[in-house]
Amino acid sequence: MDKSKRYLIVGLGLLGGKYALELTRAGYHVDGINRSEGHLQYALDHGYIQSGKTRDFEDLVRQADHIVFGLYPTTFLEWFRVYGKLLKPGCIFTDVSGVKTGLVNEIQALCPPGVEFIASHPMAGRETSSVEHAAEVNFAPANFIITPTGKNTPAGIAWAKELAQVLGFEHICTLSVEEHDRMIGYVSQLCHAIAVSLMCANDNASLSEYTGDSFRDLTRIARINEKMWSELFLWNKANLIAEIDQFEEALQQLRSALAAGDRDGLERIFRLSTERRAAFDKKER
Amino acid sequence: MDKSKRYLIVGLGLLGGKYALELTRAGYHVDGINRSEGHLQYALDHGYIQSGKTRDFEDLVRQADHIVFGLYPTTFLEWFRVYGKLLKPGCIFTDVSGVKTGLVNEIQALCPPGVEFIASHPMAGRETSSVEHAAEVNFAPANFIITPTGKNTPAGIAWAKELAQVLGFEHICTLSVEEHDRMIGYVSQLCHAIAVSLMCANDNASLSEYTGDSFRDLTRIARINEKMWSELFLWNKANLIAEIDQFEEALQQLRSALAAGDRDGLERIFRLSTERRAAFDKKER
Repeated sequence: MDKSKRYLIVGLGLLGGKYALELTRAGYHVDGINRSEGHLQYALDHGYIQSGKTRDFEDLVRQADHIVFGLYPTTFLEWFRVYGKLLKPGCIFTDVSGVKTGLVNEIQALCPPGVEFIASHPMAGRETSSVEHAAEVNFAPANFIITPTGKNTPAGIAWAKELAQVLGFEHICTLSVEEHDRMIGYVSQLCHAIAVSLMCANDNASLSEYTGDSFRDLTRIARINEKMWSELFLWNKANLIAEIDQFEEALQQLRSALAAGDRDGLERIFRLSTERRAAFDKKER
Repeated sequence: MDKSKRYLIVGLGLLGGKYALELTRAGYHVDGINRSEGHLQYALDHGYIQSGKTRDFEDLVRQADHIVFGLYPTTFLEWFRVYGKLLKPGCIFTDVSGVKTGLVNEIQALCPPGVEFIASHPMAGRETSSVEHAAEVNFAPANFIITPTGKNTPAGIAWAKELAQVLGFEHICTLSVEEHDRMIGYVSQLCHAIAVSLMCANDNASLSEYTGDSFRDLTRIARINEKMWSELFLWNKANLIAEIDQFEEALQQLRSALAAGDRDGLERIFRLSTERRAAFDKKER
């Protein structure tokens, strides 16, 4: 990527902050726009960005060669409806949103001529939020998903890949918007729905004394950023409901075998699970 | 614990093998009884036991001051019905079974005079099995649960606690048989039922490329020892079905809020989950 290009991060949260940090470390010029003065100052103090504004930021937008929107989808759309027209021809920009349907096509339709939105999703970031935790995020083992549409160009996609490499991602791949949202419904959102439900199912204040690894593993993600996740869930509602229903069906099958005292049935279910998990483990290496 | 006492491990599996290993390391005399000649030999070769037999083992049983049964509950009961009468007066013994109802009272009723069964459950051992993995097991961070009944004596309970300490457990506690099985239904068995159902819900062969930590966390225990777990599930059927139903209710509540587009409802559920998980984290430290 061209080091003379000016980068702009809009939304210096956990991921926006981490992108700024890595791009600056790699020698790029990075400016920031953020609603909160305090977090903007934090980013400046830590050298994540070279300059930043909370308002009257139109010039920063006009000058940017590349922009990363570290905003939740709803906020991103609202912002773009107002300021999107300021992006200069040739600007290629991306986002970090965990859901793509309802976002990518809409933003692309609002782009001025010569401006390209190549959407992407960094599947990273634990359940912390805020730029103050940005330095703790590790991109190396995480998946970076690029979600191009018919409106994207080879140059746009290439830029997104290079960006991911500069950021430190070792696993970069491409999915359509629809494939991405179906995938995320299962591998991420359903998991969060399950972890949260498990945590809420039982008034388990006394149980921490007795837990083993299995409970800890399943509820690690039950500490959940409620604002972000309710938004992502609602944006991907249809897919997530389908995944919840499919999961319920599998659990009901297990419950039925259990209720019927069907040992063979249970063992069949367990064997299938073990085979799939083993295949999954193999692929990961 | 008295080092002149003779220890006997019946069932040199993952946990039986680990108990043998630790007791021998601590300077106790340990014999073994195992169905498989190969695994018995492994235990001898690795110095986990000083002597062992696959059959004609009556004398080993008669001489034992303390016994640990590393057998699944059904096998343990069957064995005890045949050989339990050989235990000598003064013998105090325990088990490693993950379910206590239907086991403890029954075994205690079969004990000869002067023989005491103090049941316990080491909540450890990953999804491997077999004595060949015994050395990988780490008891220090795990919970050791003692489940005394009205038939147990202070001396018996004290022995179980000392045994746990010699084995390296740092968290030792006591629950009634009923409390244990209710607890295990939620913190362990329900988690396994969920992980397995999640793995079976989707033909996810292609998804390993896209997963993040959440999916890995939730399915770590989906590689499941089908023989042991189908037995434990069926032995604790009523409790586990109640837990599955309670979990389903919580998940349905989330699904309803989602389907209704009820953002506030979703955020309330997420906040409750976060509060509980945070309280849980605090207690763990």
